[in-house]
Amino acid sequence: MSARDNDPYVIVSSDTHAGLQCEEYRPYLDPSVMTEFDDYVAERHEHRRLTEEVNAEYIAEWEGQNADGLRGAYDPEVRDKELDADGIAGEVIFADGDAVTGMESPPFGAGLAAGQITDPKLAFAGARAHNRWLEEFCATNPARRAGIALVPITHDVDKAVAEVESLAGKPGIHGIMIPTMWHGFPSYSSDHYDRVWAACADAGLVVHTHSGEADFESYGDNVAVYVSEVSFWTHRALWHLLFSGKFDKFPGLKYAVVECGSWWVGDLLMKADTNFGGQKKIKKMSSRMKGLISKLPSEYFGESVFIGASTMSREEIRRRHVNGLDALMWGTDYPHPEGSWPHTVERLENDFRDVPVVDTRRLLGLNAVECYGLDLAALGDVAASIGPTPEQLHQDVTLTTPPDAERQARWWLDEYNCTFQG
Amino acid sequence: MSARDNDPYVIVSSDTHAGLQCEEYRPYLDPSVMTEFDDYVAERHEHRRLTEEVNAEYIAEWEGQNADGLRGAYDPEVRDKELDADGIAGEVIFADGDAVTGMESPPFGAGLAAGQITDPKLAFAGARAHNRWLEEFCATNPARRAGIALVPITHDVDKAVAEVESLAGKPGIHGIMIPTMWHGFPSYSSDHYDRVWAACADAGLVVHTHSGEADFESYGDNVAVYVSEVSFWTHRALWHLLFSGKFDKFPGLKYAVVECGSWWVGDLLMKADTNFGGQKKIKKMSSRMKGLISKLPSEYFGESVFIGASTMSREEIRRRHVNGLDALMWGTDYPHPEGSWPHTVERLENDFRDVPVVDTRRLLGLNAVECYGLDLAALGDVAASIGPTPEQLHQDVTLTTPPDAERQARWWLDEYNCTFQG
Repeated sequence: MSARDNDPYVIVSSDTHAGLQCEEYRPYLDPSVMTEFDDYVAERHEHRRLTEEVNAEYIAEWEGQNADGLRGAYDPEVRDKELDADGIAGEVIFADGDAVTGMESPPFGAGLAAGQITDPKLAFAGARAHNRWLEEFCATNPARRAGIALVPITHDVDKAVAEVESLAGKPGIHGIMIPTMWHGFPSYSSDHYDRVWAACADAGLVVHTHSGEADFESYGDNVAVYVSEVSFWTHRALWHLLFSGKFDKFPGLKYAVVECGSWWVGDLLMKADTNFGGQKKIKKMSSRMKGLISKLPSEYFGESVFIGASTMSREEIRRRHVNGLDALMWGTDYPHPEGSWPHTVERLENDFRDVPVVDTRRLLGLNAVECYGLDLAALGDVAASIGPTPEQLHQDVTLTTPPDAERQARWWLDEYNCTFQG
Repeated sequence: MSARDNDPYVIVSSDTHAGLQCEEYRPYLDPSVMTEFDDYVAERHEHRRLTEEVNAEYIAEWEGQNADGLRGAYDPEVRDKELDADGIAGEVIFADGDAVTGMESPPFGAGLAAGQITDPKLAFAGARAHNRWLEEFCATNPARRAGIALVPITHDVDKAVAEVESLAGKPGIHGIMIPTMWHGFPSYSSDHYDRVWAACADAGLVVHTHSGEADFESYGDNVAVYVSEVSFWTHRALWHLLFSGKFDKFPGLKYAVVECGSWWVGDLLMKADTNFGGQKKIKKMSSRMKGLISKLPSEYFGESVFIGASTMSREEIRRRHVNGLDALMWGTDYPHPEGSWPHTVERLENDFRDVPVVDTRRLLGLNAVECYGLDLAALGDVAASIGPTPEQLHQDVTLTTPPDAERQARWWLDEYNCTFQG
């Protein structure tokens, strides 16, 4: 084993959250919406009260045990301490710090619930308030923090383009999050948003959908139905962008789907590749597949399409080659309770034990560095003192990955003799 | 090898289609909707013309090569000959014989497109016209034909219950197909349709959704997006029924999702089982999971939930244990071009070569016999002269299935220590 093999991992959490306590957004908000903001804050407090009615014991336990670390949602010093303790060098930051009672949602729900806002004025006002704060927050440690701004593109394409252009080049801003669902607006496979995609490609801002929203009207309070569908609603945009040729039309465009797992990737890629490249598949539709894209769907992964898979399960890690070793990005989901914080290193020890170091480096950091254009040298400096080493994760550093691992994992390429049919 | 091991397979195609040429439904239709029917027939001819514009070569080839056999969509003698040649003893029959140009759709699109009808009067009139014809058609050979009637439950629950009650006990009618999508109506997890589920359970009619419909408004003519989503829209009802406890509330209720593949089953079962039975999974939601169902989701498969997986791919056959050896039902999709007809025996030879005979018998017929309560003795008589034998499929009759094959395939049961949490 060479010393290099045991270098600390440069870990980038591709899914963290930050945001002010909702009242604190006031100074960042356009004065014209203050009345609506008062109502929103009152609604948040009522929401907290109702959530406590249902789940008091759990909330008290979570907030009691993690009182200090949860302040890292908005306090940069606390945050750096928590990242350090978790071994995390860099992070990709989304809105909504509080996933338990929603008290850190941007004004009017402009974060993970943006698609549900009905008034375009409030949608943009809330997003801009968060973006103004996010710029300041990322500036507290720009090497480590990659902020994802909010742009409610469904509500107004002109305003969305203007917002993207205003974000271009801002240090610490590396992408935008769009509403997960388009509701009654044109879908993301239409041409309606093409100027937004062009602006994002020009600005080098990665486009995201993040889990949270779903078709709530159909579930009422049935959380099991919600859980069964939320991944579909979250990764739906991926296929709309891909199959409408947006990555061909806007070559610099990158898209990542976040906190949606990765267990669904391989099978949908199999279906997609065989539709576009399989012999004798859906012959009656093949004439209508022509000209939509320029290569096999799986070939867009790791180049235009990335998967912010957060705290992948062991099974998802086992499936890394079929899902795309160069597309998958691990993440802690800090400071949300679904994630690995504050026990990230233990989680990594348990889950990456059987994974070659070279694969682990990709999933834990290098893919995110490439996707977001992060400063690897600066992150390496941070990781030098906090990153767990392969030995600390009890990994066998002699494990290797066969050069044809992806080809073998994507069994359909040979079994269906897949070559792109145009 | 004993003689019994090489008995011909009793094959039940769990997915076939039948229907009149659309004009021919006229005598089965309520006289009050004849004006609308004239318009519908004209629209169908225009649709055919447009389809030919896009895909003339393919249509000419398919219809030219299969001119005789395609008449089996409505001619019982032709149909029996085609079934015989394909080795198919019994069949589960859905509407819409013509999947290429839609010329055999029931009036007003009351078959696979039922969810898109907006006028309740037309929805029920079209469904009843098909049901009247279907009863006659199944009566031509009731041992072999299990008809699935059309009931547009979203449009009117009272009328739906009346229709189900009128279908109860009709020989040859074994189930109902409901609209795949509920559009603006209450979802299938609501209580709105409970009287329909109760009536189906009482009548012993299996409830179905069948692929076809999807969120067309979001795709325009982008067939690749359609293909990427159509399975979600088709199996969505399964999870709504399951997680809202309908199979507990109505113990005799059975549901099958048809022509939607089966590649998606295992992963969604894994998610579902771990949500209800995994340790430490989604702790913040666990209090809201209580009381919805009475056992692990996977335990409903093969008892209340069945998968009409049509012409499964080799990969789907390999996954038979994770997806449910007692829930999967093979099918030819006759007379649709996506299916195996008229080359079913060659397809079986190719795809089942490595599968133990006992597993093959389940997938090809026994599961459907149990799901629909078919007459196995009568089907066996038919199969005796037409069913391919294991030797004819070049199977190795010494292959066996380990008794713990399902437990091994459902790796999450042990890895997450899944036991039902209530």
